[in-house]
Amino acid sequence: MKNKKSPLKVFALGGLGEIGKNMYVVEYGEDLIVIDSGLKFPEEDMLGIDLVIPDITYLVENKDRLRAIVLTHGHEDHIGALPFVLKELDVPLYGTKLTLGLAKVKFQEHGLMNKVQIHEVTEESTLQFGPLSVSFFRVNHSIPDAVGVAVYTPEGIVVHTGDFKFDYTPVGEKADLGKMAALGEKGVLCLLSDSTNAERPGHTLSERTVGETIRDVFHKSDGRIIFATFASNVYRLQQVIEAADIYGRKIAVIGRSMENVFRIGAELGYLNIPKGMLIDVNEIDRYSADRVVIVCTGSQGEPMAALTRIATGSHRSVKIYPGDTVIIAAQPIPGNARFVGRTIDLLMRAGAEVVFGSVSGFHVSGHGSQEELKLMLNLMKPKYFIPIHGEYRMLMMHKKLAEATGVESRNIFILDNGEPIEFVDGVASKGAKLPSGMVLIDGKGVGDIGNIVLRDRRKLSEDGLIVVVVTISKDQWKIVSGPDLVTRGFVYVRESEEMLNEATRLVQQSLHRLTERNVKEWSQLKSKVIDVLEPYFYEKTQRKPMILPVIMEV
Amino acid sequence: MKNKKSPLKVFALGGLGEIGKNMYVVEYGEDLIVIDSGLKFPEEDMLGIDLVIPDITYLVENKDRLRAIVLTHGHEDHIGALPFVLKELDVPLYGTKLTLGLAKVKFQEHGLMNKVQIHEVTEESTLQFGPLSVSFFRVNHSIPDAVGVAVYTPEGIVVHTGDFKFDYTPVGEKADLGKMAALGEKGVLCLLSDSTNAERPGHTLSERTVGETIRDVFHKSDGRIIFATFASNVYRLQQVIEAADIYGRKIAVIGRSMENVFRIGAELGYLNIPKGMLIDVNEIDRYSADRVVIVCTGSQGEPMAALTRIATGSHRSVKIYPGDTVIIAAQPIPGNARFVGRTIDLLMRAGAEVVFGSVSGFHVSGHGSQEELKLMLNLMKPKYFIPIHGEYRMLMMHKKLAEATGVESRNIFILDNGEPIEFVDGVASKGAKLPSGMVLIDGKGVGDIGNIVLRDRRKLSEDGLIVVVVTISKDQWKIVSGPDLVTRGFVYVRESEEMLNEATRLVQQSLHRLTERNVKEWSQLKSKVIDVLEPYFYEKTQRKPMILPVIMEV
Repeated sequence: MKNKKSPLKVFALGGLGEIGKNMYVVEYGEDLIVIDSGLKFPEEDMLGIDLVIPDITYLVENKDRLRAIVLTHGHEDHIGALPFVLKELDVPLYGTKLTLGLAKVKFQEHGLMNKVQIHEVTEESTLQFGPLSVSFFRVNHSIPDAVGVAVYTPEGIVVHTGDFKFDYTPVGEKADLGKMAALGEKGVLCLLSDSTNAERPGHTLSERTVGETIRDVFHKSDGRIIFATFASNVYRLQQVIEAADIYGRKIAVIGRSMENVFRIGAELGYLNIPKGMLIDVNEIDRYSADRVVIVCTGSQGEPMAALTRIATGSHRSVKIYPGDTVIIAAQPIPGNARFVGRTIDLLMRAGAEVVFGSVSGFHVSGHGSQEELKLMLNLMKPKYFIPIHGEYRMLMMHKKLAEATGVESRNIFILDNGEPIEFVDGVASKGAKLPSGMVLIDGKGVGDIGNIVLRDRRKLSEDGLIVVVVTISKDQWKIVSGPDLVTRGFVYVRESEEMLNEATRLVQQSLHRLTERNVKEWSQLKSKVIDVLEPYFYEKTQRKPMILPVIMEV
Repeated sequence: MKNKKSPLKVFALGGLGEIGKNMYVVEYGEDLIVIDSGLKFPEEDMLGIDLVIPDITYLVENKDRLRAIVLTHGHEDHIGALPFVLKELDVPLYGTKLTLGLAKVKFQEHGLMNKVQIHEVTEESTLQFGPLSVSFFRVNHSIPDAVGVAVYTPEGIVVHTGDFKFDYTPVGEKADLGKMAALGEKGVLCLLSDSTNAERPGHTLSERTVGETIRDVFHKSDGRIIFATFASNVYRLQQVIEAADIYGRKIAVIGRSMENVFRIGAELGYLNIPKGMLIDVNEIDRYSADRVVIVCTGSQGEPMAALTRIATGSHRSVKIYPGDTVIIAAQPIPGNARFVGRTIDLLMRAGAEVVFGSVSGFHVSGHGSQEELKLMLNLMKPKYFIPIHGEYRMLMMHKKLAEATGVESRNIFILDNGEPIEFVDGVASKGAKLPSGMVLIDGKGVGDIGNIVLRDRRKLSEDGLIVVVVTISKDQWKIVSGPDLVTRGFVYVRESEEMLNEATRLVQQSLHRLTERNVKEWSQLKSKVIDVLEPYFYEKTQRKPMILPVIMEV
C-alpha cells in the first residue's frame, strides 16, 4: 500500500449543499472511481449562465488513476456534465441501458460519439478495477433503469443509493430489497444516501396512483388532452400511452427532449407504444378532439418549451381551443413557480381546463420521504453515514433520521463538496479539503466566466450603462471630439434629453479643467468622468448605471 | 342623471390577474371613489425595477370627479402606491387608525405630510360623497384594523370585502358577521371578493394556533430565540410579546419596517408591550441567552433584510451562536423560496436550530380558503359577482365557488384591469376598456422606464456588452484612432485576449474598406461593426453580447 495514511477516501465533487451537479468519488490507493457526472441549472443571480458543472481539477490532476465513471441513472443532474467532463478525461463510462441511451444523445450533439468508451451494465454486472469491485442494485425512481452502487474495497463496502424511493406498486420493476438487505448483512462500512425529501414526513406515493388520475381524466374528457411532464419520466409517459390506448386516442409528441425520449424509450423497449398510435403534430386536425392527446415538454413553464409556446400562442402548429384539457403532471421546482403560474393563466385565458401538480394527483415525487430513508438505513445498517444529494437543511434532517435509526451521531458526516472522509482500519476521519467548486458554462465557453463577469452583468442588469467617449489631441492636449454619451438600459433617452445634455456639459467642463492643467494620466481622466457623473445621475434618478469612460488620443 | 347610459361603473386599475397593486374604482355619474392604492413587487424579468404601481391615467383625467381614496388595510399591496398617487392627485384619504398610521410613515419618507388630507374612520363611520355613501365592516386578516367597504349607490350596494379570512378565535377583534349578514339582507348588487386562496380547500387556520406553537418553542428553548416574520403581522408580534412575558425574555427589534411597526403599534395601542421588555440590540449580550428574543425582518430571505444579514454574518451587532433557535414565521411567496432556503442553510451552518413555515405551525395565511369564500358569498348573496385580488386561475376558481353557492354563471365577471362593469337599472354589462396598466419605478423615476430599457437590461444581463470606439478624421476620412474594444460582462479579458485582438483586426479591416470607398453614412459604418463582430463572437463563444459602436469625427 503506497499511501499508508489514507487508503480509502470518499468525497463529493458536487451534490452536497445543493440539488444538482452530482459527482461522488471513491478512491482507494492508486484507484479512483467516479459515480455520476451531473449538471445544475443556474441560480437566479447567475445572469446569462446556461449550466453549472462540477470543478473536476482533482480528476484531471489524477487522471492516470481514474478507472471509471459509473452512472446511477439518466437524469440531467447525474449525467448532464458528461460531455464537458469527457472532453477533458479519457475514462470508460459504465451505466444501464436507458442511462447510456440518454447519455449518447448528448455525445452525438457534442460530436463525441467516436471518442467515448461506453460499457453497458445490468444490475447483475460486477466490475473490477484493481482492488475495487463494483456491483449494482435496482432502485425505484422517476426514470427506469435506476440503480444504486456498491463499491467493495479492502476497507469495507461503500454504498451509494442513487436517487431512490420505495414504490411497492411500481410501473416498472420493483426495487431489489433482497440485494439491499444482503449488503446490510455483509456489513456496509459507509452509506451515501439521497436526501432530497428528508424534510418530508411519511412515504412518497406510488407512481401508479398518477396512472389512475390520468385514466380518470381520459374517461371524463371529450376534448383534446394536452399532457406536459418531465420528458425523462418514462413511467408516466407509458401510463399516458396506456390511457390513450384504452380511450382510443392518438398521441402527438412535441418538444425536442420529449421526442428524444419517445424515440429512445421505444427503441430500447422502455416505452410500449401500440402500432399506429403516434401521429405527427401536423396531423392532429384530421382527428376529432376526443381522439387526440398531445404530449409535450414545458411542465416547468420554461420560456422556450412547447407548452409555454402553446400557451403564449406562438407555437407554429398547436393552438388552444375551448374544451381542451391541459394536464401539467409536475410540481414546480422553487424558482419556477411563477413561470408555471403564468403558463396556467395563459392556458386558462385561452379557454383550456387546466389541472396540475401533486394536489390534483398528477405528480408524485421520485424521491423517498422520511419513512423510506429510514427503511434504507435499516436495510443497510451502515457504520458510517454521509447524507448526499441535498441542500444543507436536507442533509441535516437526514442526519437526524439516521440517528433515530441507530447510526452513531459521531459516525455521521455532513460534508461540503471536496471534503473527504478517510477510512483507516475501519476508522473514519475528515481529510484535507480537495479542489472543488463550480464551473459556469455560457455558450461554448467553459471557465471563461467568473465573479467579475457576473458582477458586471448584475450591475448592467440593474441600472444599465452609460458610455462616455472623448477624443483628445495628442499635440495640443485638448478635447477635439465629444464627450459623447451613449446609454442603454438606463432611461428612455427621449424623455431624459435634458439630463443627458447637462451630464455632457458637466463632463466637458471637468475634463477641460484637467487638460488645461495638462493632466495626462488616463486613469485620472477616467476617474474624473465617473466622479462627476455618478453623483449627478444618482441625484437625478436614484440609480447607479455603470459608467464606462473611453478616452482616445489622436 | 347626466350620463344615462352608465350611471354606475365598477372596475379595477390593479389587482386583477395578479397579486398586488390593488386599486378598485366605483364610479357613479359625476362621482368617483377609489378603494386602495397598492404596489406590486417586480417580476423576475423586470430587471432593476424597485416597484410597480397602477397606471392612474384615468384618475388623473377625471380628477375633478374624484371624491376619495378609501383604504381597506395597511398592507403594501393596498397602500404602497399612495405616495406616488397622491403626488398626482389631490384627493382626501380615508382609512382606519392603523392603516393611516402605516401610510403616514410613507408620507413622511416622501415629504408629503403637509400635502395629504387624511381622515380617520372606524367601522361605525359613514361617509357621504354626493349620491354615494360608504360604510365599513370589520374583517379578519393578518393585520389589525382591516375592513371591508360597502358603497351605497342609487343602483344598489357594491361591496368590496378587502382581504379577509374568518378567524373565530382571532388574536384581535372578531369579524362583524352580523353587519355582513345585514348587507346581504338589504341586498347586495355586486360583490368584489378576495381570491388569494380560492385554490385552497377547507378553512384557513386561526392565527391563535401560531401563538400556541410560539409558546411551545419558548417553553423548550434555553438559548436565544430569533423570530422573523412579516413586520405588519401585529397579531403575531403580540403573541411573541406575550410568550416573552410568560418566559421572562427581553425583546430586541431589528429591521427598519419592524422597528416602525413596533413604534406605531405601541403608540396606537395595537401592541401591548410590558414596560422594560424592549431592549436595544446592543444590549443583548448583557442578558443570558435564555432571556433574549430578537424580532426581525427577513422572513422572505430578502437580500438586505436583518435575518439575511445575520445569516451571512454581515450584521453589525448580531451573530449566530450554536444553541440559537431561529423561527421563520412565514411562508415563502413564489420566487422567494430559494432565497429563504439559502438563508435557512446559512443559519444552520452557523449552528442554529431553524424552524419555519406553515408545516411547523409558525405561519397561517391571512386569506380565507374555499369554505370561507363560500361563507362570504352566502352572507352577501350578491346578484353580481366579481372575483378580485388574484391571478387568473384564482379568479376562475373563485367563479366556480360562487356558482356552487348559487350565483348565476352569467352574473359572474372575470375581468382584466381597466375593464368596467356598467350597471343600468340593475342590469350589468361589460363596458369599453379604460386606460390601465403598470408603471415601473426604478429609483426616483416614474414612467421613464419601459420595454426598450428593460429589453436592453435583459440583453446586457445575459451576455454583457462590447463597446467599439473608432475615431475618423473628417478631412482624410480615415481611421486615426482605434478601433478600441471595451467589454463588460462578456468574458474574462485576460483569458480572451487573442479573440479580442482578432476581433479588433476584423473591425479595422472592414471599416478601412468602407472609408477607402469613401462611405460616410454613419449608420452604415456602425452596422458594419455589428455585422462583423456578431457572427465572429457567436462562433467563438456561442454568446451574443450587445455591441455598441461609437464612431467619432475629428
